[in-house]
Amino acid sequence: MNTIRALALACRDAARSVAALDTAAKRRLLLAMACALESRTDAVLEANAEDMRLVMEKGIHGAMLDRLKLDVSRVQAIADALREVAELSDPVGVVTRRESRQNGLSIERVRVPLGVIAMIYEARPNVTADAAALCLFAGNGVILRGGSEALRSNLAIAAALQAALQANDVPTAALTLIDDLSREAMIELLQLTDIVDLAIPRGGEGLIRFVAEHARVPVIKHYKGVCHLYVDRAADSTLALNLLIDGKTTRPGVCNALETLLVHADIADRFLPMAAAALQELRVELRGCARSCQLVSGMQAATDDDYAAEFLDLILAVRIVDDLDDAIAHIQRYGSDHTEVIATADETVAGRFVHALRSAVVMVNASSRFSDGGQLGLGAEIGISTTRLHAYGPMGAESLTIERFVVRGTGQVRHLPG
Amino acid sequence: MNTIRALALACRDAARSVAALDTAAKRRLLLAMACALESRTDAVLEANAEDMRLVMEKGIHGAMLDRLKLDVSRVQAIADALREVAELSDPVGVVTRRESRQNGLSIERVRVPLGVIAMIYEARPNVTADAAALCLFAGNGVILRGGSEALRSNLAIAAALQAALQANDVPTAALTLIDDLSREAMIELLQLTDIVDLAIPRGGEGLIRFVAEHARVPVIKHYKGVCHLYVDRAADSTLALNLLIDGKTTRPGVCNALETLLVHADIADRFLPMAAAALQELRVELRGCARSCQLVSGMQAATDDDYAAEFLDLILAVRIVDDLDDAIAHIQRYGSDHTEVIATADETVAGRFVHALRSAVVMVNASSRFSDGGQLGLGAEIGISTTRLHAYGPMGAESLTIERFVVRGTGQVRHLPG
Repeated sequence: MNTIRALALACRDAARSVAALDTAAKRRLLLAMACALESRTDAVLEANAEDMRLVMEKGIHGAMLDRLKLDVSRVQAIADALREVAELSDPVGVVTRRESRQNGLSIERVRVPLGVIAMIYEARPNVTADAAALCLFAGNGVILRGGSEALRSNLAIAAALQAALQANDVPTAALTLIDDLSREAMIELLQLTDIVDLAIPRGGEGLIRFVAEHARVPVIKHYKGVCHLYVDRAADSTLALNLLIDGKTTRPGVCNALETLLVHADIADRFLPMAAAALQELRVELRGCARSCQLVSGMQAATDDDYAAEFLDLILAVRIVDDLDDAIAHIQRYGSDHTEVIATADETVAGRFVHALRSAVVMVNASSRFSDGGQLGLGAEIGISTTRLHAYGPMGAESLTIERFVVRGTGQVRHLPG
Repeated sequence: MNTIRALALACRDAARSVAALDTAAKRRLLLAMACALESRTDAVLEANAEDMRLVMEKGIHGAMLDRLKLDVSRVQAIADALREVAELSDPVGVVTRRESRQNGLSIERVRVPLGVIAMIYEARPNVTADAAALCLFAGNGVILRGGSEALRSNLAIAAALQAALQANDVPTAALTLIDDLSREAMIELLQLTDIVDLAIPRGGEGLIRFVAEHARVPVIKHYKGVCHLYVDRAADSTLALNLLIDGKTTRPGVCNALETLLVHADIADRFLPMAAAALQELRVELRGCARSCQLVSGMQAATDDDYAAEFLDLILAVRIVDDLDDAIAHIQRYGSDHTEVIATADETVAGRFVHALRSAVVMVNASSRFSDGGQLGLGAEIGISTTRLHAYGPMGAESLTIERFVVRGTGQVRHLPG
């Protein structure tokens, strides 16, 4: 048997031990993982320095280096994040529904772990600890396959965490880091349909498409966030402007940042010039429809591609729409089902917006930037699903479990064929 | 654009109209579908007679012919099933959780339809109506791809149902029956990742493996049901025997029938000879471990394959186990995660059995034959998932929806990067 399959089988067996832990034992484990990581900070930073050196030798700079880099405070932050997971409520064993049938059967829906989760990710080494913590806390085994740039950092972090597993009598295979980073090994991992219950890719669109193409195990995908703000005729201008500036400018590189502004035609000549001035002052580039360009100087014409783009940058697509239906039609055509926002004081309009759209998160008079597991009350987040299956929107520990049926009787039988 | 993609796109657009229907409108639609089907009984039976004639010409007989055959009472039963779906509670729009955050945001989890569901099935023409009804009631569009043997019957049923859609101003594309039954067309349908939200295969293992292999859209699989009954040392013998006979003999060809009996060694010499005699009287063939064979005359030796088999027949695998852990280990090794039953009067043992196993349905002192959407209170059932993702166990209308986030605020922003 080759290595990937053997590693995955060992993880599956170890996952049964994790599933059997009670909440207190899992909390102790996570706190021990945090301490183990802190106590090995030097080893982690040494490994990270070597990763950084190799990446810089390749002439890579900028954002990727920053994502890769660890220092004492970042290692501390990773340990703190582990302690935060330990404070979450445990989804495993929760009885979500209870019913008694006429024949006396008691039927409960109870959350159980998924089993084995494969995380496929790129340069950020903190994902190694974050993902492991959430998967283990939800009673699962986890197989981690990070990016090659961070391999040494990931190995050092995983070794620290595994030491905590061992000290807590949990088989270390419950947290398995794959160090064969070949495409063949990844493809094999993604096709272990009898072992891996779920694969979660986190990273750029290329990685996610690769995983989606090759996986035969279930995948929860997070493609892009093309988030819209629709400023309705009945919107408060100041409120709408605040949502716009918060959504577009406070962190343009994340998926819950705004990419497109839709403005009701009746208020466009009041709202749009003011909003454009504020955004341009914050160095946001505007790309608008023909009507918008007439109202705002310095706005360039938007292409069809601009409306479908996740800019991840200080660029905003703008369009004047005739009415609510026009706004909804635009979002249905160009949106990515991630997060949409309406600014309006008209509750009927808000209700129609919410009802017509099936995006994972729909906000009424609140910033798109709240579309985040922590902000929405899930605690830590393992990703944001844009797939309408199993989980939709921010995914916390609960999304790493599934409801099953527990039925208790006193000897009931069905007797009759049927 | 070729036909399959065009049909699927039309279904997706039509699905938006279905998603917008309120409960009352959906109920009216289902009742109209039932009436339309009844009023076209003659056309359906004519088409079915032609299907039957062609299948018999191929020399096919037996169970397949029976699954294909319709008559007046079976058409009536299909119409009645549509009326039953109309009485279910509507999962769409249900608020499953509601929370207020300290910053004043109100966060709701609300069920929305999945979108477009592709049903892939074999000879039973009733699936055409059953699946369409559940998918539409849950606010989805449905693409139906049935077996070639039933094509004429399926077309006649779909035409009747579509007439009801049209009379209710719902675009008929919301219920699309594919009449190109080539493998190429099926593969194309299964790879429309931008249109189809979920594929559900229903049929033999070959069909399900084909779908799993070729699908790039999410699939909920129902492999086999290797259901176990474990008779504990503390079991009431009569109760255990009732569960055994009900589970094995009342309908051996279905997935919730028992396939394997595990008996605690301490009671094997009392329970097993009695149980074997009762089963042999009902013409059940027994295949046992060495110890069992010593206790029961006429029992043949079980192979490893027998313990993994879904016999779908009057055959039962038998094994004497040393204790609860031994029983659990057997089920973990050979089971299919479908349904497991324990017979015991010891609540601690029952609790350990439930906790250790992660099968979709675990029964304490109740027959495996209750592992069915109707029996477990879901109303109609679209399938039984053995995949631990999205749905696990019997799937009703609710499993054809997904929870999303609806957030209401008064202008809240996050302000700080982070």
